[in-house]
Amino acid sequence: MVSFEPKDLSTGKLHGYLLSAVAPRPIAFASTMDTDGNPNLSPFSFFNVFSANPPILVFSPARRVRDNSVKHTLNNVEATKEVVINVVNYDLVHQASLSSTEYDKDVNEFEKAGLTMLKSDLVKPFRVAESPVQIECKVNEIIKLGTEGGAGNLVICEVVKIHITEEVLDDDQIIIQEKLDLVARAGGDYYSRAKNGFFEVPKPLRTRGIGVDAMPDAVKNSMIFTGSDLGMLGNIEALPTTAAIADFAKTIGEHHADITEMSHREKHKMARNYLSYGDIDSAWKLLLS
Amino acid sequence: MVSFEPKDLSTGKLHGYLLSAVAPRPIAFASTMDTDGNPNLSPFSFFNVFSANPPILVFSPARRVRDNSVKHTLNNVEATKEVVINVVNYDLVHQASLSSTEYDKDVNEFEKAGLTMLKSDLVKPFRVAESPVQIECKVNEIIKLGTEGGAGNLVICEVVKIHITEEVLDDDQIIIQEKLDLVARAGGDYYSRAKNGFFEVPKPLRTRGIGVDAMPDAVKNSMIFTGSDLGMLGNIEALPTTAAIADFAKTIGEHHADITEMSHREKHKMARNYLSYGDIDSAWKLLLS
Repeated sequence: MVSFEPKDLSTGKLHGYLLSAVAPRPIAFASTMDTDGNPNLSPFSFFNVFSANPPILVFSPARRVRDNSVKHTLNNVEATKEVVINVVNYDLVHQASLSSTEYDKDVNEFEKAGLTMLKSDLVKPFRVAESPVQIECKVNEIIKLGTEGGAGNLVICEVVKIHITEEVLDDDQIIIQEKLDLVARAGGDYYSRAKNGFFEVPKPLRTRGIGVDAMPDAVKNSMIFTGSDLGMLGNIEALPTTAAIADFAKTIGEHHADITEMSHREKHKMARNYLSYGDIDSAWKLLLS
Repeated sequence: MVSFEPKDLSTGKLHGYLLSAVAPRPIAFASTMDTDGNPNLSPFSFFNVFSANPPILVFSPARRVRDNSVKHTLNNVEATKEVVINVVNYDLVHQASLSSTEYDKDVNEFEKAGLTMLKSDLVKPFRVAESPVQIECKVNEIIKLGTEGGAGNLVICEVVKIHITEEVLDDDQIIIQEKLDLVARAGGDYYSRAKNGFFEVPKPLRTRGIGVDAMPDAVKNSMIFTGSDLGMLGNIEALPTTAAIADFAKTIGEHHADITEMSHREKHKMARNYLSYGDIDSAWKLLLS
């Protein structure tokens, strides 16, 4: 391992490591307004949801590493305590990127980026009409994390209204995540288009899986299984019964192969096949035959 | 649009919308220890980096929506003010998921998930040896966002040491993001493998792009260009000079086609081709010919 303490690195270098290591980061496309009513729009990837009740989103317009200057978004939320957080999908990437340019205070980034201002219901800042989910928020608090360049400012936002385009909802008003097509930020110039990387992992058992420590040694110490395989095998409430194992061995024996003739190695490889399509039960029955 | 106020929805339903809309979320695989020295390990996707100077990560072990109970991780950070945040790559997904099971307080999730405890340098909780980046942190503050089920708790963590495996670093000690192979959480049972969705967008000009509002009407109001195309075209410092445009037209005329004979529609389609591989300069020269 290579190891650093923060004091060993310049802020720029440390910033770079943190942006690559904590990723992909969701993007808040934050619409604010100054006290004169001038709109501002800028994307932030120091952002996430942190609570459902109360519904709280937090984003951080950090002081610039380069010159310790502060973004207009921060000035605006300090003055008005209101923000609309719009999500960024694949079609909005270049416009969000363009609006992150450091235009002067009186420049309207909606116009610069060719986006449409949509009136909000409960707050003054506009929504981004092109964004598939627009979240109107009141700012409860702003926590300054420091005073030097690179210092973050936690803007604690309470959701007061959510707008979702019908195009991304199914008949039960559930969001179809592939249709939402969100993007996120990673290190350097990298973005990640979420749906290209989607896969599903069933939620772990509420009843508690047996865990890796409770497995037979031959399985736990297998040279075939990866940690990921063991993780899947551990997520079963109880090992199958002797009767269920015997039934399984009989069925396999009739159609495929005589399990009693198989080596540990062969069994483990075949069990990995079961795991590859999520059939943990068959994997265990085979391993215990 | 479909619009809701939080009071219109159950906490569970609102939670579901927030998890789908704010995604993909990075995962903190948080290792803590109780005051008796019992290790605990659990993943959290209410998590992000928020500041580089001081270096601050924030994660939220929320009160359970189901029964308003609190996670061991929260009890431990309250008692000890220390945590190691390990990142989760693709190979660790099933073990991270298994360790999110609600085991009893005295159960060691490192053992349950088949992971290796590695001694930290500056804090007591163990690192996850299998994780490619391990971040030792001191907890500066814990901000409770509410008292009901679903209420988050902001754990404000200051980085005191970062460990990165050499396997993900290049010769200049920069993280190769494809090798890091991080995963993130989205709504429902969805995860996203970041590298499958990676694409690059060059950082916007520090000198400020001309913006969509400064473009000729024929471009701005084109039926061919998407918002994304306009966003790219807006990220240029100045339109090309008349001389540069004439040179371009001459070269194209010699090798390809007479630009003066092309319709707006044909020009815009050809400009989109240039934009598809990031050649904004040629796109503008063509459009202005």
